[in-house]
Amino acid sequence: MDLTERTLSSREVFHGRIVRVRVDEVRLPNGNTSSREVIDHPGGVCILALDEQNRAAIVRQYRYAFGRVMTELPAGKLESGEEPFVTARRELAEEVGATAAEWIDLGELIPSPGCYAETLHMYLARGLTFRAPQPDEDEFLEAEFVPLEELAERCLSGELRDAKTVAAVLKARALGY
Amino acid sequence: MDLTERTLSSREVFHGRIVRVRVDEVRLPNGNTSSREVIDHPGGVCILALDEQNRAAIVRQYRYAFGRVMTELPAGKLESGEEPFVTARRELAEEVGATAAEWIDLGELIPSPGCYAETLHMYLARGLTFRAPQPDEDEFLEAEFVPLEELAERCLSGELRDAKTVAAVLKARALGY
Repeated sequence: MDLTERTLSSREVFHGRIVRVRVDEVRLPNGNTSSREVIDHPGGVCILALDEQNRAAIVRQYRYAFGRVMTELPAGKLESGEEPFVTARRELAEEVGATAAEWIDLGELIPSPGCYAETLHMYLARGLTFRAPQPDEDEFLEAEFVPLEELAERCLSGELRDAKTVAAVLKARALGY
Repeated sequence: MDLTERTLSSREVFHGRIVRVRVDEVRLPNGNTSSREVIDHPGGVCILALDEQNRAAIVRQYRYAFGRVMTELPAGKLESGEEPFVTARRELAEEVGATAAEWIDLGELIPSPGCYAETLHMYLARGLTFRAPQPDEDEFLEAEFVPLEELAERCLSGELRDAKTVAAVLKARALGY
């Protein structure tokens, strides 16, 4: 069966600093029409950065949309036209104060395919060299290193719930890192 | 350090069928002000439904926001005020045509904590009994069963990118299912 939905019209309803929102009218496979709410997003990266003791960098930051501090892998949004690998190197320097000698592609992640048009690129970084973190002005986070094994346990127990963190950590573990 | 950001004002900029979007002015920990774009979402569920041969139900459906068909675990949004477990049973019946004797909580997932205020509840379901699927009108999807082992490989290879699918499958595998 051809499952394709074809765009009939598109209307932008919000153009923000990070996201844009549009409502599209579509033609369904059965010929009916329906509407689709789409949140366009520039996409982003996350980095599973492992030190010599196989400890991973994590950051704690306040997530306003959830009203609480969350523990996640270092991450960030793509600047306009930026290659994900460039973003990843920048975010690792800004949030953790590290550069990495080795970068391994952990694949892409689509956080929420229904309405949220964000694609994340996941990397594993090793061979770290440290200098001072360079956080964005008005970005507040606390970085630390925890054993990858412990991080995986905290994902499996349900304590850590951030999708990119769970996906990257469990992928890396299953791949033998 | 207190990382809390305090709401100064909130303005709804879009109220859709599925999502609402607001822009809030916040007080940062350093006393500066900034704005936060928040997409409110009812939340949802996904189900890793395993049959007697340890094959998992997957659904293929057109994801308009990405312009392509994606392979994912069965999933759905919470109706207003609905308990996640009720949603999970309903979606398994609608999309796969199955009821399950055993339900195991696989924890929560926050797909994209930056702006998208969606929380997903993940379940593992076993002891399946089949009847005809009952898809929503205007919902078009194809369900099939594939070995959990194969599904895990397709997550690890990067072929499957949907966050809930990667998280639930790799969690289940790491937990010994």
